[in-house]
Amino acid sequence: MIKRIDHIGIVVEDVEEALRVYHQALGLPLGETQERPDFAATITFLHAGEIEIELVQPLARDSDAGRFLQRRGEGIHHICLEVDDIEQTLADLGEEGLQLIDEIPRVGPTGERFAFIHPKSAHGVLIELYEHLTSETAHDSDNQ
Amino acid sequence: MIKRIDHIGIVVEDVEEALRVYHQALGLPLGETQERPDFAATITFLHAGEIEIELVQPLARDSDAGRFLQRRGEGIHHICLEVDDIEQTLADLGEEGLQLIDEIPRVGPTGERFAFIHPKSAHGVLIELYEHLTSETAHDSDNQ
Repeated sequence: MIKRIDHIGIVVEDVEEALRVYHQALGLPLGETQERPDFAATITFLHAGEIEIELVQPLARDSDAGRFLQRRGEGIHHICLEVDDIEQTLADLGEEGLQLIDEIPRVGPTGERFAFIHPKSAHGVLIELYEHLTSETAHDSDNQ
Repeated sequence: MIKRIDHIGIVVEDVEEALRVYHQALGLPLGETQERPDFAATITFLHAGEIEIELVQPLARDSDAGRFLQRRGEGIHHICLEVDDIEQTLADLGEEGLQLIDEIPRVGPTGERFAFIHPKSAHGVLIELYEHLTSETAHDSDNQ
């Protein structure tokens, strides 16, 4: 069901400051930066072996990451697990009694689909499920 | 300097309960369990692609994980980065001005060496550095 860990999300106040540690000092290679209006955040990826570290800088205090920053300060926000079939995974986890934040996957800017499991159901960890875009799901997305 | 992410450590109250989510519901394959007197904790690994999830159940309230649990509740405790040469990495990070919890690596039960960077220097993230045991470092360890 779970293929691998895709990325670890870290909420930071200022991505440029965080890059001084994660890129300059630790030497993790830079990946892409995305402006994400759906999260009210700027996200910057760093490569760490086969997975990525995602630095999330909130752009609004009333966003999810903005509230996290005010409540807990900077730190790890979520783990993202890559799955083959997100609908099936969500159905299976619902049957197992896990509380889902998203019962239906959200759709990202390039058509990729993701959903969150509530931390109450995962021992305090916010887990994102993520299905990589394939030609088949991209086609489905075009038809929506 | 950093080769890859080795594992993500999650502090839980009860490993058996946590395995119902991470192993049974999410389907992550079980790895080894270690009793770790040096951490006053039981740790259980789960495989997630090339990296592992480490469930840490504290066995004492005044341990590091025990204090984390009382202060913040269950959740992600640290990220562990594998390095080639831990002494060199610690020296480099010290020069970059990062605050180290361990300036000299600690030695685990099988001779493996690890050290922690203070979360204040890594935007709220407790980072463990870990050098896998090789025949050369095992030999060094024998001589200590």
